Amino acid sequence: MTTEEAEDRNAGKHRLRHALHLFPGRFTSPGNAPGDLSPPPDLTPVPASLYLLDFDAADFTEKDDCTLDEARKYFDSPRATWLHIQGTPTEELLQSIGEAYRLHPLALEDVLHTGQRAKVEAYDREVFAVLGIPQLIEGQIETTQLSLFLGDTWVVSFCAGAKDPFDAVRQRAARAESRIRRRGVDYLFYSLLDTAIDLSFPTMEVLGERIEALELTVFDDPTREALDEIHHLKRELVLLRRTLWPQRDMLNNLLRDEYAQVQESTKLYLRDCYDHAIHALDLVESYREMASSLLDIYLSSLSNRLNDVMKVLTIIATVFIPLSFIVGLYGMNFDRSVSPWNMPELGMRFGYPLLWLVMLSVVAGMLYYFRRQRWF
Amino acid sequence: MTTEEAEDRNAGKHRLRHALHLFPGRFTSPGNAPGDLSPPPDLTPVPASLYLLDFDAADFTEKDDCTLDEARKYFDSPRATWLHIQGTPTEELLQSIGEAYRLHPLALEDVLHTGQRAKVEAYDREVFAVLGIPQLIEGQIETTQLSLFLGDTWVVSFCAGAKDPFDAVRQRAARAESRIRRRGVDYLFYSLLDTAIDLSFPTMEVLGERIEALELTVFDDPTREALDEIHHLKRELVLLRRTLWPQRDMLNNLLRDEYAQVQESTKLYLRDCYDHAIHALDLVESYREMASSLLDIYLSSLSNRLNDVMKVLTIIATVFIPLSFIVGLYGMNFDRSVSPWNMPELGMRFGYPLLWLVMLSVVAGMLYYFRRQRWF
Amino acid sequence: MTTEEAEDRNAGKHRLRHALHLFPGRFTSPGNAPGDLSPPPDLTPVPASLYLLDFDAADFTEKDDCTLDEARKYFDSPRATWLHIQGTPTEELLQSIGEAYRLHPLALEDVLHTGQRAKVEAYDREVFAVLGIPQLIEGQIETTQLSLFLGDTWVVSFCAGAKDPFDAVRQRAARAESRIRRRGVDYLFYSLLDTAIDLSFPTMEVLGERIEALELTVFDDPTREALDEIHHLKRELVLLRRTLWPQRDMLNNLLRDEYAQVQESTKLYLRDCYDHAIHALDLVESYREMASSLLDIYLSSLSNRLNDVMKVLTIIATVFIPLSFIVGLYGMNFDRSVSPWNMPELGMRFGYPLLWLVMLSVVAGMLYYFRRQRWF
Amino acid sequence: MTTEEAEDRNAGKHRLRHALHLFPGRFTSPGNAPGDLSPPPDLTPVPASLYLLDFDAADFTEKDDCTLDEARKYFDSPRATWLHIQGTPTEELLQSIGEAYRLHPLALEDVLHTGQRAKVEAYDREVFAVLGIPQLIEGQIETTQLSLFLGDTWVVSFCAGAKDPFDAVRQRAARAESRIRRRGVDYLFYSLLDTAIDLSFPTMEVLGERIEALELTVFDDPTREALDEIHHLKRELVLLRRTLWPQRDMLNNLLRDEYAQVQESTKLYLRDCYDHAIHALDLVESYREMASSLLDIYLSSLSNRLNDVMKVLTIIATVFIPLSFIVGLYGMNFDRSVSPWNMPELGMRFGYPLLWLVMLSVVAGMLYYFRRQRWF
Amino acid sequence: MTTEEAEDRNAGKHRLRHALHLFPGRFTSPGNAPGDLSPPPDLTPVPASLYLLDFDAADFTEKDDCTLDEARKYFDSPRATWLHIQGTPTEELLQSIGEAYRLHPLALEDVLHTGQRAKVEAYDREVFAVLGIPQLIEGQIETTQLSLFLGDTWVVSFCAGAKDPFDAVRQRAARAESRIRRRGVDYLFYSLLDTAIDLSFPTMEVLGERIEALELTVFDDPTREALDEIHHLKRELVLLRRTLWPQRDMLNNLLRDEYAQVQESTKLYLRDCYDHAIHALDLVESYREMASSLLDIYLSSLSNRLNDVMKVLTIIATVFIPLSFIVGLYGMNFDRSVSPWNMPELGMRFGYPLLWLVMLSVVAGMLYYFRRQRWF
Repeated sequence: MTTEEAEDRNAGKHRLRHALHLFPGRFTSPGNAPGDLSPPPDLTPVPASLYLLDFDAADFTEKDDCTLDEARKYFDSPRATWLHIQGTPTEELLQSIGEAYRLHPLALEDVLHTGQRAKVEAYDREVFAVLGIPQLIEGQIETTQLSLFLGDTWVVSFCAGAKDPFDAVRQRAARAESRIRRRGVDYLFYSLLDTAIDLSFPTMEVLGERIEALELTVFDDPTREALDEIHHLKRELVLLRRTLWPQRDMLNNLLRDEYAQVQESTKLYLRDCYDHAIHALDLVESYREMASSLLDIYLSSLSNRLNDVMKVLTIIATVFIPLSFIVGLYGMNFDRSVSPWNMPELGMRFGYPLLWLVMLSVVAGMLYYFRRQRWF
Repeated sequence: MTTEEAEDRNAGKHRLRHALHLFPGRFTSPGNAPGDLSPPPDLTPVPASLYLLDFDAADFTEKDDCTLDEARKYFDSPRATWLHIQGTPTEELLQSIGEAYRLHPLALEDVLHTGQRAKVEAYDREVFAVLGIPQLIEGQIETTQLSLFLGDTWVVSFCAGAKDPFDAVRQRAARAESRIRRRGVDYLFYSLLDTAIDLSFPTMEVLGERIEALELTVFDDPTREALDEIHHLKRELVLLRRTLWPQRDMLNNLLRDEYAQVQESTKLYLRDCYDHAIHALDLVESYREMASSLLDIYLSSLSNRLNDVMKVLTIIATVFIPLSFIVGLYGMNFDRSVSPWNMPELGMRFGYPLLWLVMLSVVAGMLYYFRRQRWF
Repeated sequence: MTTEEAEDRNAGKHRLRHALHLFPGRFTSPGNAPGDLSPPPDLTPVPASLYLLDFDAADFTEKDDCTLDEARKYFDSPRATWLHIQGTPTEELLQSIGEAYRLHPLALEDVLHTGQRAKVEAYDREVFAVLGIPQLIEGQIETTQLSLFLGDTWVVSFCAGAKDPFDAVRQRAARAESRIRRRGVDYLFYSLLDTAIDLSFPTMEVLGERIEALELTVFDDPTREALDEIHHLKRELVLLRRTLWPQRDMLNNLLRDEYAQVQESTKLYLRDCYDHAIHALDLVESYREMASSLLDIYLSSLSNRLNDVMKVLTIIATVFIPLSFIVGLYGMNFDRSVSPWNMPELGMRFGYPLLWLVMLSVVAGMLYYFRRQRWF
Repeated sequence: MTTEEAEDRNAGKHRLRHALHLFPGRFTSPGNAPGDLSPPPDLTPVPASLYLLDFDAADFTEKDDCTLDEARKYFDSPRATWLHIQGTPTEELLQSIGEAYRLHPLALEDVLHTGQRAKVEAYDREVFAVLGIPQLIEGQIETTQLSLFLGDTWVVSFCAGAKDPFDAVRQRAARAESRIRRRGVDYLFYSLLDTAIDLSFPTMEVLGERIEALELTVFDDPTREALDEIHHLKRELVLLRRTLWPQRDMLNNLLRDEYAQVQESTKLYLRDCYDHAIHALDLVESYREMASSLLDIYLSSLSNRLNDVMKVLTIIATVFIPLSFIVGLYGMNFDRSVSPWNMPELGMRFGYPLLWLVMLSVVAGMLYYFRRQRWF
Repeated sequence: MTTEEAEDRNAGKHRLRHALHLFPGRFTSPGNAPGDLSPPPDLTPVPASLYLLDFDAADFTEKDDCTLDEARKYFDSPRATWLHIQGTPTEELLQSIGEAYRLHPLALEDVLHTGQRAKVEAYDREVFAVLGIPQLIEGQIETTQLSLFLGDTWVVSFCAGAKDPFDAVRQRAARAESRIRRRGVDYLFYSLLDTAIDLSFPTMEVLGERIEALELTVFDDPTREALDEIHHLKRELVLLRRTLWPQRDMLNNLLRDEYAQVQESTKLYLRDCYDHAIHALDLVESYREMASSLLDIYLSSLSNRLNDVMKVLTIIATVFIPLSFIVGLYGMNFDRSVSPWNMPELGMRFGYPLLWLVMLSVVAGMLYYFRRQRWF
């Protein structure tokens, strides 16, 4: 193994070490009361930033990086209000918002303990949806949690992690003629969900290209790095599927059940969103099959290689072993002076040239045999 | 590896490079407003051509390659109208048709962003169906998207790609006694769907023949090209299944739900169409199993080959290695003059012929042993 | 490879070539009108023969090999009528019967285009059932299509292929006290279905015996022929499953839905028939698992063999390679006259016998080592 | 292969030969009338013995090994009556009992043609349940068929095979305070079903122990016998699953549908029985996964072994082949008298000891290399 | 194999021997009356300890390690009562409690025969839930059974094994403002269930870490211990899944059906609990896929290793075998005095150096060939 290879291999390890963990997020310890808002012990929090949008069809107010106190003024606004918290909320912030909108403690607990399975839950005053969104961050797939609360006139959204996925939504909301401004909070709620779900597609595209690149290399060069990459791919697909599968159920529940806060006309849009979720799952499934097929190809290519190596060994050995026997034979020291029966060939006039003839015919015969067996 | 093999292998790569991409079509970027009709960035458009058919049971008008302005006259025709757009519609064309028939923006977006999952959606004024159709183009399977709108008295169809699949339908519509003319637009809608779904069968037939051809070669000659072909086959089946599976759901929805535009008497025909869709899926499933079985056979044949190679090596080595030892033995230079114990065999009168006897018996014994082990 | 083996291998190919095709039957080309009765291009027709049975509880008339004109007289018979067409009906025959009983064109098309998926369909005047029946013809499984029409007082049945499966039913119908005579056409319809479905069981029995025979040979002798046979078996099971699976759905539909032509009391019998269909599917599933297990055993046995071969090679090589080195050592020509350091062993009195001792101990040590490793 | 091993292998074959057949029981030939009671041709009958129990809460009459005539007296008994037939009933016996209780001919046919799929069927006068019960007979799993008829005041049970599974039920029925005596025939019906289903558990326990024993041996010693045993295990699990899966459906039907003969209060007990059936299936499923895992382990252990063998060969060959070259080199006969360039080493004073030094360093270098590769 | 390795391997065996048994718990022997409370024969009982909590919103009484007589006083308490029995109850204790609360005998039997499948059952007076809970005891996963009875004003819980999982619940119940105190027994019932289900997560976390550790080692060092560990992991996941899967069904039943003892407002909490159960199952499924992938990686790494070993052997053998032939050639003893044709090379002036040149070119050619094949 050259130094280069050793480095590549270390890179492989490195990659595995930085990948998503199999066990996601953090949980309250068994037996704790539901609705416990103390932060899980090993969380490395990203400081939370607040964004507030207060709007109706005619006008809108936008506050970026606003403080909790600023936001508080809009809590009872008669207009549609969107409060977005990016990062990890502090216990106090969560408590304040929870109390202001009277959010259910079970839902607030889920906001804090990221790694939740996607679900939608109707509480007395609000609809609560939580889902994981796969984002491409520096070429790596990372799953961050999005929690959405939809009330009568407000949407509260929490997005864990540092990268805010909703810039495009904000730009659309700023345009007076946009549907968000005209149709109200449940359409905004849909827009956020739709954005979150469509975030799977760039990830899918990158994965598709990685699989296609692997397809070309695995056939010709089944290296350890390719095996590493295949395993890495399977792992990401297993985790992606675990994220996307419950999204489908969540959207199905949203479509099937009646929610006071969701207008019937918005369901048409949610159905479109549901189709996208299913499409993403279809892609994951076909990628998974391709990844399995890649592993089969990898193993087959290894076997092919082994066959090639063995054939070379066998041809060389099979050609030379009989020759070695022959030359060994005439290296024996039987005492020719004792008896004419002892190795008379050594004393023949053309013994040596004849021997060459014999050996060349042996080689030719062997090669002809291997040719017929299509070994080379 | 000979030059010929190298070329074959390159052909294999070439094939993979031209195959369908794992990630289909193009999507609006996450966060964009639904109903965005700007063309996706990397689309290579085929110029759109319009075909118009305006008919009732008594008479019909047909316009091939007509312009948008010509078509416009028939938009409010009281007779049944079929407008077919082959190729990629421009934003303007799509907008005009969308406005004329008041088509839903979500549906129009799906027309443009090809690679959609098959689905049917009922909007206020129209039924919208979209599906991928696998076509054999120069021996390659390509999937193009068909979008169908069914209104009260009109059908609008968009087919991406260059190859128009509906020639036979047009010929039938030209015959006055045909059911299309007698039964109206929903029957025409069914005819287009049925044609699209039956397009799977020629593809299936070709795939079936390719599998059967592989069955014969894989047993005798498990080459790298066969492995390449098996992988290629699995890939096409995975993609085909991804195309056909949602077709089944789409037709099931069409049958199950009530649509104002679809008469009850047409459902009988749609059920036949549904049976065909299921049949195509059954075929895909059994092909997939055969392809998996082929890979198992491939691996088993490789193992068989390795066994054969190893047996040849083992027989040769096992026969000659002891002989080489024997001849080496009598090539030693122990000083026979020092002591009678040193290699007295070399001085025996029949030493050399006896040695040949010994060696021949060793060979005979070995061959007898291998024969009993059924190694050859 | 001996001549014998070559013949066996050819037999294997031969078998594959004669097996059922993966792509079944023939389809109308995409875009054709449904109900097209022109025969598919590549069909090799079996001349059709007609059988007619006209009966009530008291009496019956039977006409074997009758002509269409003879049959025509019974088309409006008030008694129960069974018209059976064995073989491929001509376009004219099909048209005549279709008109006489006013059969639906979609159903008639299915009669002609064999290879249909099993289904039941209720048309205005008749119930139409179509299914594939696996028959053992000269030890080979062949699937022929059975199409059944059930009207108020008549049953029309079409069976493709040359072998008529309904002899036993005819004998029962000839007995005055038989249920067929007493219970009327829907019971006859059931009897034909039941016979068709029970035809799976002799096939299953033969397959079961073939699997059990393979179980015994694969362990001891994993030949290429066994691999061939396993693949052949898997293929037949895949096709058999594709035939039987929709039979279950068809019977389930018959039981679940209301059909005017099927009396409630006959459903008890159809349920028994349904149980048989499920039983046959259960058998196929367990056979499939056994076939997969056989392939695993085959591969394991191959690996075992390779291990055995490698052990023989390794033992021989490992024992003799050191010995060859030793005898080579004392074949060197160092000039003993120059220095006493040069190969003094050659001049020792007991050099040669001592060398034998050394070599024997090496062999003994090796054999002891291999014994401990349980290599032989 | 030693004699001992050959015997073991034969034992393996023997075991396979005596195992359950893949194709179970016997069927009426296709086309035969349903309800045919002539015994299937190749059945080896066990003479039937009758057991009769006539009881109410106060008293009971028990007749072991009674004749049909004795039993006949109780056919119209107003008290609860249980008639149990162990073994294969003759056609006459079946007919008599069938007529006495007016049992449905389809059910009677199923009693005779053992190997039925478990099912429950409600006829006009009785509920009929049939199921296969796995019994451990001399360490082998055998499946015998139990057929149960439940009427208003009577239970008739047929159990094929020689081993009567209902001794414990009889003892409970003998106790006046037992629920069987108090609750009547439907509770007795439940008790028989429950006993039959619980018979899976001893079988499961034995299989679990066999899997755990295999787990220990496969790792260390992947012999052919272990492979044989794994296959045998998989086969038994496939057949067991085929037996148990329909039991679940049967009990589900019993619970879900209304049967006049089954009191609502008995359903609680049947639900417990249903839970046991599901539990047994869960066990089969996890055993199947363990068996698959065992095969993977087996193959991995074989590969490990092959690797070990190859390493030994490679180490030996790699160490000695260069040495053999070196000693061969100095065995050449170049004429040193012609030129000082011809093999001057042979004439050096310390040529031979120096050569040994060279050879020892080669060996040391090789061993160091292999050590670093962790080959030993 | 070094001593160290032998010890490691024994540790592997040891681990397997102490793992959970495939066949869980104990069952009444088939045919026994349901509700039999005699302890199963081979149970090693843990002495039972009683814990009693009697509470309302205002006040509470707690009795740790109380006797049956002390507990008896609270059996009819009007306040909410929780009786927890940790360990294996004696027949007498079970009988007493069963009679006091009139628990159903079928349920009591399930309490005693641990290894039950999770289920919920509504009896006349109580709801009975039973489930297995996976606990980490000294790094090993052990499944103990929890049985819960919910009456109108009481909860009785039995937990087999020595480790009491409900300490946190007790602490919460001690706080006057806790929901347990305010919401009554059905909330307590939920709290116990929730605690039991959340106990899966610490187990999952440990398993996830073990898989990630294996991922790193299997690539570089596919040892027997890794194989052992993978199998062990798969086994635990199979058993874990068997435990968790029915938990999901149980909770689904609790949510779906109406139970007099469970308030509607508690269902919100049970739904949260249900989500956790599904989440745990999702984790098990993805772990299972990772474990399968690990085995594939293991086998691929083994093949890679074999390839590496074979390449070394082939390179060495291929380089030296021709050289050995050459040196053997010039070790022959053809009589150069007889004829000038006999090995004239030996008499050439630069024969020996020229031979070295030839041999070095052979080596260089070989190495160049292997380099081009990318063998090293």
